Amino acid sequence: MKSWIEVPENSDFSIYNIPFGIGSDDGEKYVCTRIGDQVVNLYNVAMTGFFKGTVDDIEVFNQPTLNAFIALGKLTTRVVRLRLQETFSNEHSPLRILNNVFKPFRTVTMHLPLAIGDYTDFYSSIEHATNAGKMFRDPENALLPNWRHLPIGYHGSASSIVVSGTPIRRPNGQTKANDATQPVFGPTKKLDFELEMGFVIGKETQIGDTISTAKAEEYIFGLVLFNDWSARDIQAWEYVPLGPFLAKNFASGIAPWIVTLEALEDYRVKGPQQEPAVLPYLQYEGSKNYDIQLEVVITPENSEPATVSTSNFKYMYWNMCQQLAHHTSNGCNVRVGDLMASGTISGPDEHSLGSMLEISLGGKKPFTLPDGQQRSFIEDGDTVTLRGWAEKNGQRVGFGEVYNLIESARQS
Amino acid sequence: MKSWIEVPENSDFSIYNIPFGIGSDDGEKYVCTRIGDQVVNLYNVAMTGFFKGTVDDIEVFNQPTLNAFIALGKLTTRVVRLRLQETFSNEHSPLRILNNVFKPFRTVTMHLPLAIGDYTDFYSSIEHATNAGKMFRDPENALLPNWRHLPIGYHGSASSIVVSGTPIRRPNGQTKANDATQPVFGPTKKLDFELEMGFVIGKETQIGDTISTAKAEEYIFGLVLFNDWSARDIQAWEYVPLGPFLAKNFASGIAPWIVTLEALEDYRVKGPQQEPAVLPYLQYEGSKNYDIQLEVVITPENSEPATVSTSNFKYMYWNMCQQLAHHTSNGCNVRVGDLMASGTISGPDEHSLGSMLEISLGGKKPFTLPDGQQRSFIEDGDTVTLRGWAEKNGQRVGFGEVYNLIESARQS
Repeated sequence: MKSWIEVPENSDFSIYNIPFGIGSDDGEKYVCTRIGDQVVNLYNVAMTGFFKGTVDDIEVFNQPTLNAFIALGKLTTRVVRLRLQETFSNEHSPLRILNNVFKPFRTVTMHLPLAIGDYTDFYSSIEHATNAGKMFRDPENALLPNWRHLPIGYHGSASSIVVSGTPIRRPNGQTKANDATQPVFGPTKKLDFELEMGFVIGKETQIGDTISTAKAEEYIFGLVLFNDWSARDIQAWEYVPLGPFLAKNFASGIAPWIVTLEALEDYRVKGPQQEPAVLPYLQYEGSKNYDIQLEVVITPENSEPATVSTSNFKYMYWNMCQQLAHHTSNGCNVRVGDLMASGTISGPDEHSLGSMLEISLGGKKPFTLPDGQQRSFIEDGDTVTLRGWAEKNGQRVGFGEVYNLIESARQS
Repeated sequence: MKSWIEVPENSDFSIYNIPFGIGSDDGEKYVCTRIGDQVVNLYNVAMTGFFKGTVDDIEVFNQPTLNAFIALGKLTTRVVRLRLQETFSNEHSPLRILNNVFKPFRTVTMHLPLAIGDYTDFYSSIEHATNAGKMFRDPENALLPNWRHLPIGYHGSASSIVVSGTPIRRPNGQTKANDATQPVFGPTKKLDFELEMGFVIGKETQIGDTISTAKAEEYIFGLVLFNDWSARDIQAWEYVPLGPFLAKNFASGIAPWIVTLEALEDYRVKGPQQEPAVLPYLQYEGSKNYDIQLEVVITPENSEPATVSTSNFKYMYWNMCQQLAHHTSNGCNVRVGDLMASGTISGPDEHSLGSMLEISLGGKKPFTLPDGQQRSFIEDGDTVTLRGWAEKNGQRVGFGEVYNLIESARQS
């Protein structure tokens, strides 16, 4: 496939991608896709009757979130994507003569793409769970007894999920040094990113319903880059016995583009062998992991970007189908727009660690940036950027990026 | 004050209450209040021009949730409540001649009153935290080191919060007996209620904003009875290290009536002395606890109701203002309709325990019902009802009830 729209080499937004997002330029928000450096206003496309017979109510494209579009169901959204792919490849596309459809991406503001009902974060990388367990708990028993039996997860705050580009203020919080008798309140000293992928629920269930691993993909609309910002010192003090709370809910970053599961079909790979065997409701067949290359870049104020991690989504021990089967195994219902994130994605070596906690060994081994600065955790003025892309046979499907600049804490 | 509407003795819905909810009878959902045994359709009241000058857009009463009404702000909702109180006390009220405003409560279906953005559950009863800590962890160190320094909380699932009367299916889940080497999957054997009060956020903040304990009440619209259904065996296996997940998110029960903070003004009491002194951002002045009597009733199938607990909201160690100040101390934003629950409300003696976990000592000391049946946890066919009311000088402001019947688990 080749498009009549120019797609720069190594663009995340090839003809094979066709992701969805919410944009605006000089007015209302609209549903859009992107190809090459062009954002495509799908409401204006729909106004021409382009989706006639596929989408009857074109107001789903005239919305501040993707929820109504996603709720049309995969039977429909899949056709929308294929028709766009087809017309972008067709020299005689009727879209070529329209002047209100294509906008250079730099002239479009991208917004939070979803109204997120519930946000769940898993903890599904065995490397990350092992590394974190060593530092937060017992180095000898890093992986807790339940970890290989179920995909551990917890609910997070949906209110504070912000789109890429939104600056994030260093949170204040309560911490206690190991050698202190009393806690103190002030800016976190251990601000950290977590390199994650999220998946977006595309089909609701009713309370009491379950979703099997075999059916789970029917409920997944697509994937998105996600940065689960964390404050390690706040976390260490607050997290027993009910889990992370203020250490996480001050902000999470999400990329503006949701890449559909269909666009990732060619990048499926087998997951790691699970030992011991999992219970029947968590068993699955086929290749449920995805070979998606990931990287984390820190750009200090007035300095050069430095890549601090190159990881891959394929390392996940628990896959998305298992996560969703587990999440609904008790009858917990899901809604369109719910977001479920992977947990930090770390790989097996020191270059593939998905958090500063792991990269700097909790601060014991600071990372030296190319300009000579050292980083144990994230400093004020740093911008952290996550990127992800799948690539095979010269075809690239990318996720764009999620970046946030860290601002200094509010005076407490 | 006395109303021309009959208010039965001991009614929760006296002239001093005027709570808000969402009802329907033969059509659309509407915002309503209740006095005595009458549900009052506030949209039909508004249609007469009754709220002119106070609420300009009467469509806020023609909604499936209270969110738009609450979002008007307390300056407005307080006046709405006072004008209703006034007209219900006025023999010459113009509402007396309307025939579409009052409906007997048994003819009205009450609905989930809110679109809940984020749901947070605290853990703020020192008696409950101590009792639970003894059973889940170490009897000698039941209260963890952080407990007296901050109101521990965690995020839960908003999707599965259901209004009173909704049957709840016993959840399946993964559990592991202490003496077993492998976990199993099946119906929970330790289904439990948690007697809680929730408060509803009435005013949003922006990400990065904080709310002081002194200002917190401005952000609290009102209170509601809440049952945080829990599966103790699932919880015990899954909760380390990230907290409860499937043990809680299969369902929570909420009462249909939100009682405003203003209606509870007369029932303020001092909270317990906090030792050691809390950090400055958690300090507060005045009486921030509320004397609200609470009870839990179990009604087995084809049997009599049995009261298994009589507790009181005044026992809370951490008050709502502290909870909200803590929740936002890191800049986490709140939205209108967010729900924050207290955690299980237990008191100092064996009759005031807010969960079967505590009442039956984890199953070691089953509770004997009047009909001779024993209960360690909740059985299929049981209906669990929570009730709450404040009473002083012959004035009663009640919360109604939240009840759920437990249905047998789905075949797994």
